[in-house]
Amino acid sequence: MTAPEPLSYAAAGVDVAAYDRLLERVRPLLTATHGPEVAAGIGPFAGLYTLPGGGRLAVSADGVGTKIKVAVAAGRHQGIGHDLVNHCVNDIATAGARPLFLLDYFATGRLHEDVFTEVVAGLAEACRASGCALLGGETAEMPGMYALGDYDLAGFAVGLVDRDVRREPVAAGDLLLGLPSSGLHTNGYSLARRVFEDVSLDHVFPELGRPLGDVLLEPHRSYLERLRAPGWKAAAHVTGGGLLGNVPRAMPEGLCAELQRAAWEVPPIFELIARLGRVADEEMLATFNMGLGMVLVAPEPLPGLPVVGRVVERRGAHRVLVR
Amino acid sequence: MTAPEPLSYAAAGVDVAAYDRLLERVRPLLTATHGPEVAAGIGPFAGLYTLPGGGRLAVSADGVGTKIKVAVAAGRHQGIGHDLVNHCVNDIATAGARPLFLLDYFATGRLHEDVFTEVVAGLAEACRASGCALLGGETAEMPGMYALGDYDLAGFAVGLVDRDVRREPVAAGDLLLGLPSSGLHTNGYSLARRVFEDVSLDHVFPELGRPLGDVLLEPHRSYLERLRAPGWKAAAHVTGGGLLGNVPRAMPEGLCAELQRAAWEVPPIFELIARLGRVADEEMLATFNMGLGMVLVAPEPLPGLPVVGRVVERRGAHRVLVR
Repeated sequence: MTAPEPLSYAAAGVDVAAYDRLLERVRPLLTATHGPEVAAGIGPFAGLYTLPGGGRLAVSADGVGTKIKVAVAAGRHQGIGHDLVNHCVNDIATAGARPLFLLDYFATGRLHEDVFTEVVAGLAEACRASGCALLGGETAEMPGMYALGDYDLAGFAVGLVDRDVRREPVAAGDLLLGLPSSGLHTNGYSLARRVFEDVSLDHVFPELGRPLGDVLLEPHRSYLERLRAPGWKAAAHVTGGGLLGNVPRAMPEGLCAELQRAAWEVPPIFELIARLGRVADEEMLATFNMGLGMVLVAPEPLPGLPVVGRVVERRGAHRVLVR
Repeated sequence: MTAPEPLSYAAAGVDVAAYDRLLERVRPLLTATHGPEVAAGIGPFAGLYTLPGGGRLAVSADGVGTKIKVAVAAGRHQGIGHDLVNHCVNDIATAGARPLFLLDYFATGRLHEDVFTEVVAGLAEACRASGCALLGGETAEMPGMYALGDYDLAGFAVGLVDRDVRREPVAAGDLLLGLPSSGLHTNGYSLARRVFEDVSLDHVFPELGRPLGDVLLEPHRSYLERLRAPGWKAAAHVTGGGLLGNVPRAMPEGLCAELQRAAWEVPPIFELIARLGRVADEEMLATFNMGLGMVLVAPEPLPGLPVVGRVVERRGAHRVLVR
C-alpha cells in the first residue's frame, strides 16, 4: 500500500510553483484596473476596498477543491458547505473583518436536488454560525462539463473591516501562535486522493481510529471567534501552498517566521499520507497545513494557543523556516 | 442537418423548470440567514444589502455556462472575460447600482498559462470599461474534475446603489423598451451546441454571413451606460430562462408584460437554431433572449430604443405574453 515512487503535489497534478509564476504574470492586468480605493489587490488573504462613503470592505473568493470528489464518493455533502463558508470567512477575518454576506456558485453537469439541498443547508448553517447572510448565488447546469455526480462550488464573502489589525507592525521577537486544524481543511486533496486511491473510505487505519472518509471530510474549522478577539498583529490562513506558502504572507520584508516542529502535534492523517505516499518532508510542508489551520503573530502568548515559533530577522532567501 | 426530433433545452440537459422548483425548495434555508439588512434575498437580478454605516450594496454571482465549450473548441478566450463581467454588471445595474469591484473564480483540471492569461485579460478589459476594479479571485487546479482543456469561470460583482430605480412603481400602460443583444450572450449554449454539434465553427451559413464560431462567441453586451441614464422604472436582464423567464421578474403582482414579436428584429442565429433543431417557439422564448438582451420598463419612449411591448393588467396565469 506504499507508493512505488515518492508522490508530490505536482505529480498529483497540482503545480503550486507554476501557479505562483502565473499569478505574477497576470498581476499587472489586475492592478491596471485598480484606483486608489483598492488597498490591497491580491491578498495577502483578502482584497480590500474603500467605499465611496468611507468604511472598508474585505473580500475573498474561494473554492473547496477536489475535497468535493471525496464528498461525492462518500455521498455526504453538508460538510462541504461548512468548508466553503469557513474558508472564505477565515480569509477575510485575517484582515480584521467580520463577515456581512456570502454568495455561492454551484456548477454541475446535471442538477441533483438532494445533493444541492444538502450543500446549501451546509452553507446556510455555517453562515448562521458566522453571523453572515447567505445572500444568494448562481446555480449552473452544464451538461458535458462535469462527470456524472460531480459538482464544483465556489464562494465569495464580503466583510466589513472594523478593526485595524496592522496598527502594530510585526517585529522580530514576536511570537507565532498556532490554531489547530481539524485535518486537511480544503487543501492538498489531489495529493491525498492519489495516496488513498486504492483504499475504501470506510477503512479504519489504526492510527486514525475512525473511517478514512470521516477524517478526510472533517470540515474546515472557523477561526472567526478567535480572530475577532484582540491580542494579535497578523494572521496567516494556511490553505493552498501549506505552511511554507502561507506563513510568509504574514511576514513583512526583512523578517522570517521560524517554526518549531516539536512545538505542536501533527495529526496522524498527515503522517499517514507522508508514509504511504512517500511524500518528502518539504513537500508535505508546502502542500498541507500539518495541523495548524491558522498561524497568528502576537507580541505575547494568548491563552490556550501553543507558541509554535517566533519572528526573526531574515538571513538569506527564506521567509519561513521549519526546524 | 435538421434534427430528427424536435430539440428542447431539457432534452439538451438543462431543465429550467426543475431548477426553479429547486430554488423554491432551498429559499427558506437562505432566508433563515437574513437579517433586516438584507433587502432582497434572491433577486430579482441582484442581492441587496444595507451596510452598517448606511449605503446599500447590490451584488451578483454569475457564470458563463457552456459557452466556454465553444471558446475551448475555437481556442479564443478573451471574449469569455467580457461575457462574465458584462453579465454580472448588467445584473447589478438593474438595481440602480454602479459596479465597484469584481472577483473571479477560475477552475480547471490543468492550468494552461496562455488560456488563463487570455481570460484574465478579457476580465480586466471589461472591468476597466465598466469602471470597476478586478480585485482578485481564486484559481483552482483540480485534476480529474475537468476534461483536458476545459475550465469553468464564475464572477462576483459588488456595486453601490446610488439611484432608487423603484421610486415610481411599474404601472399598467408603461412601455417595454428593448435593448438589442449581440447574440446568445451567455445562455442557451447547451441547446445551441446540440443543434450545431456536427457543424464546424468555421462554417459560414448564408443567413449569418460570417463563421458560426464568430457568431456564437460574440461577447455579452454591457448595458451599464444605458442603465446609468434616467428614464426607466425597472429592468429585466434576459439571461437563463430567456424572455419568458426573465421579463416577468420586472413585473409587480397583478401586472403582465405583453411583448409584440413584430416590434423587434430577431437575429438570424435564433431563426437558424429554431429551424435546424426544430425547436418549438415557446421553447425558444423560454431559453434565449431572441435579440433582446435587456427589457426596460419606462413611462415614455427613450431615444433609439424600440417599443417592444406594454405593461397590461394581468388576466389569468401569465405574467408575460408574446404576441
